[in-house]
Order: sequence, then structure tokens, then C-alpha cells
Amino acid sequence: MKTYLFKIDFLVRDYECDLQGIVNNSVYQNYLEHARHQFLKTVGLDFSLLFQQGITLVVTRAELDYRWPLKSGDQFWIGLNIHQTSKIRYQFHQDIYNRNDQRLILSSIFTATSLNDRGRPQSFPQIQEALTCTSSPDQSE
Amino acid sequence: MKTYLFKIDFLVRDYECDLQGIVNNSVYQNYLEHARHQFLKTVGLDFSLLFQQGITLVVTRAELDYRWPLKSGDQFWIGLNIHQTSKIRYQFHQDIYNRNDQRLILSSIFTATSLNDRGRPQSFPQIQEALTCTSSPDQSE
Amino acid sequence: MKTYLFKIDFLVRDYECDLQGIVNNSVYQNYLEHARHQFLKTVGLDFSLLFQQGITLVVTRAELDYRWPLKSGDQFWIGLNIHQTSKIRYQFHQDIYNRNDQRLILSSIFTATSLNDRGRPQSFPQIQEALTCTSSPDQSE
Amino acid sequence: MKTYLFKIDFLVRDYECDLQGIVNNSVYQNYLEHARHQFLKTVGLDFSLLFQQGITLVVTRAELDYRWPLKSGDQFWIGLNIHQTSKIRYQFHQDIYNRNDQRLILSSIFTATSLNDRGRPQSFPQIQEALTCTSSPDQSE
Repeated sequence: MKTYLFKIDFLVRDYECDLQGIVNNSVYQNYLEHARHQFLKTVGLDFSLLFQQGITLVVTRAELDYRWPLKSGDQFWIGLNIHQTSKIRYQFHQDIYNRNDQRLILSSIFTATSLNDRGRPQSFPQIQEALTCTSSPDQSE
Repeated sequence: MKTYLFKIDFLVRDYECDLQGIVNNSVYQNYLEHARHQFLKTVGLDFSLLFQQGITLVVTRAELDYRWPLKSGDQFWIGLNIHQTSKIRYQFHQDIYNRNDQRLILSSIFTATSLNDRGRPQSFPQIQEALTCTSSPDQSE
Repeated sequence: MKTYLFKIDFLVRDYECDLQGIVNNSVYQNYLEHARHQFLKTVGLDFSLLFQQGITLVVTRAELDYRWPLKSGDQFWIGLNIHQTSKIRYQFHQDIYNRNDQRLILSSIFTATSLNDRGRPQSFPQIQEALTCTSSPDQSE
Repeated sequence: MKTYLFKIDFLVRDYECDLQGIVNNSVYQNYLEHARHQFLKTVGLDFSLLFQQGITLVVTRAELDYRWPLKSGDQFWIGLNIHQTSKIRYQFHQDIYNRNDQRLILSSIFTATSLNDRGRPQSFPQIQEALTCTSSPDQSE
């Protein structure tokens, strides 16, 4: 099992399942976003407050590998690691595991950056500092 | 068939169906909100722009009677009427019909009001004027 | 404070907030559905399994009074009571409270029934028995 | 401008926007799924009916490049091409464009396959035939 910087538990809710009786593909992005935002809070960054301050965190690329479905009532957890890939670019590596049998459900990589209030990519010291302690550019997974 | 001030067509999308293979209860609120906002545009009111101007339109009460389910691929339409019930309060009467057989799917009443930037109910002339032409306090359905 | 048969804790997730920065009206139905389904599990009824057995639990009417908004990061809880109103009809009374200040956010009543595999309302002993111990027809709130 | 096998028009609905006032990342997956399912109907394949017949179409990988946001009221269209990459694997190349200025909003690649009723990848003649006429293994974009 890989080691993760941050872990968070979830439970599938019935409204998240689609007509195939499994969690709809798009819902995983909801889970993964919530995991990222909860992680950010642990390093002192609040997605919503940052936005009110004119700093917009955005995803520029998402890669999701769907390995196995989740279904009604499943308990699962998300593991997260973060790597800085440029001055203003971070990669979140996030994996979802079924909590019952630890089966890998999904692996994903989200590339994110920060925009200023004119919508341009910009580096902000508070983000740099908060994330530097947790990531390293040369760290291999 | 009742007459409506405003009508709008929709198509059920597969991701809107839940594990019972029918449109999830909460999704009807999405349909009905979109219908209200599209209606508001026809009288010159834009929900998003109003919010940017400090005017927040909010729903204070929703009543939904679920008569018959919608399922994958169903085409349907929403009919809307509006009644002013006080100086700052409006009721949207919205019904959903299957487009194929005109069967009534759902009937609903949404009570809405406008808040100022301190979160207090307030009457705004631009809303009053836009909606007055379309509703009447004493109008029975 | 009212007493409730069942309580469940939630946390607002950022993707549940809309362009007004508050939880979208329809999302409350998701919360309330999840609370009902989790309550049903405590009395031995599984919404998804029942459906696989040909028993469809459906909402026939929803009434929601929106008192105060929830926003990013808010912690809240839902209290639930249930009343049998006819042989095949149950009412769920569900209230949402902010966990920080116990402010009432929303109160709601959902009327539900059970359908057989031909879509007709039908009473099922396993549902009757599971819910009888928790509700009473003549109980006033 | 690339040429596409299939195009479909959409309108951003306000409930699809999040607290940043732009369409939430996960919602694009909803749009793209609906576009794929509508395309499949044009070649005689119905996602929901196939599932009822024991054929489950699933996404195994998604790549999404977010170029520019969509916001309240934006009209946009999705262009779709399909490539068969193995006996049981198809790639959907899907791009989203703002209808007003034809700006590229998002480009994506979805890899999909078909599962039998035991959850194993399997080739089905009806899918092969329906999709063969529209895709070619060696076709470069």
C-alpha cells in the first residue's frame, strides 16, 4: 500500500448512484474535490476564503482511471499526495480505496494552479508556503 | 390543460437517474430552478447579474407533489405561472408534464423573495416592475 | 429543542454551493434523502436492497421551509421523526440545524409510500414491522 | 476548427455553477456523458436499454483539459469523435466550445468498454456493428 500525506473517509450516498446502480463517473470528481479542499484546510488554506480574497484555485487537468465501481452503502477512503511541478503548478495524486477490502477503486492526478483576480496564473506566497512543507518537486511517488 | 405564462422543454439525461432507474427527487428542483431562471430572463431579470448587484433571490418554501416518475430519455416540459402574494413575496406555480402523453409528472409551488446585501428581505423596483406585468395578487389559478 | 428519533451529522462540501456561495436548494433534498436512508438502515431496511427485491420506496410529496442558508464549511445535523399516516403512507419530519449555533436552517416534511413491482402502492409486512416500532399514527409532533 | 462526427448544443444552468461563479469541474463530466449517450442513440445504441439487457457500458479512463471556464448563461457545444483502440475498447474525443466566440473550453478523451453481466469486458456484435461504421482503428485525429 502506498503511503499518503492525507486520508479522508467517505460513505456512498444513494443519490450518488446512477441507473446502473453504481456511483456515477462524475461523482468521483466531487469526492476528490472535497478531499483536496479538506487537505488544504489542514495546511491553512480555505478554498472559499481564498476566492473571496481574489485568489482562485483551479484545476487545469484531470486524469482518472476507473478500476472498480463503488455502489450503494460502500465505505471508502481517499489517499492524497501533492507534488509541486512548477512555480505555480501542483499535482494532486489521489487514490480511492474500498474500506472493506482495500481494493483500489480509482487512481487520479489533478493538476492545479492559482489565478489572480484578472484570471491570470500567479504565484501567491501564502499558497507557496502552505504547500511547500508538504510537497517536494523531485519526489517520486 | 391549464394555461401557463411560460413553458420550457427538457430532456432527461442519464446521469439524472438514480439506482431505481428514475429521475432522482432532488433533480426536479434543478429542472424547476432552471425553468424559473429562464422565465426571469424573459422579463429582463438575470439571477446571476442580480446577485452581482447585491440582490439575492431566494426560495423560502418549496412544495412538490410527485405524481409519476420520469426515466431515461423522457422528454418533458415545465409550465410556469407566477403570483405576487405580498409586497416582497412571489409564488411560482410550476407543473411538469411528459411530452409524449401529456401526463402530469409533478406539480409544485415555490415561494420566493428578494434579499438585500445584508440578507434582509427588501422590495426592489426593478423586480417589482418586471414581475408586475406578469402576475396579479388576486389571480386564482 | 425538539426531540428526534434519529440524528445524523453532515459537513457542507464546496461543490454543493452555488454561485450565491450558499448550498443550492436542491442539495438539501440530497442531504435529507441520505438521512432518511441512513435512518431506515437503523431499523433494518435498506433502500437499495428493497429495490432489488421489487419494493420501491418513493416520495409522493415534499415540503421544505428554507429558514437560513448553509455555506462553505458549515457543519450541520439533521433530526428525523416518522409518523404513519395511513396503512401505506409515512411522513418523515426532518429538520436541519447548524451545529455551531444550533440555528434552525430548514424544516421539512416528506410523505413516502411503498410500491410493488407493478408500480402500485402496496403495504409490505417487513416495512410495516420495521417502522411500527418507531412511529405512531396518532403521535402529534 | 476540427471536424466532428457528432455535435450537440447545451446551455449552462445556474445550479451547475459553484461558489466561484463558474461551472464546477465535475459538471463537465455530466455534459460529456450526456453527449456520448446522445451520440450512441444516433447509431442505435441506448445506454439504459443496453444495461437492462445485461450490457454495461463503462468508462475506464478520463482525461480532461480545462482551458477556460463556462459561467452562468453561457451557450456551448460539444464535438465528438470516436476511435476503436482494441476489440473491446473505444476512445471518445470530446471538445467543448463556447458558442458565442468558438473559444475552446475543454478537451477530453474518454476510454470506454463493454462489460457482460458478470462484470467482465466482452465484445458484443450489436455494439461492434453500430460503432464500426463511425470509427476506424487507424484514424488519426
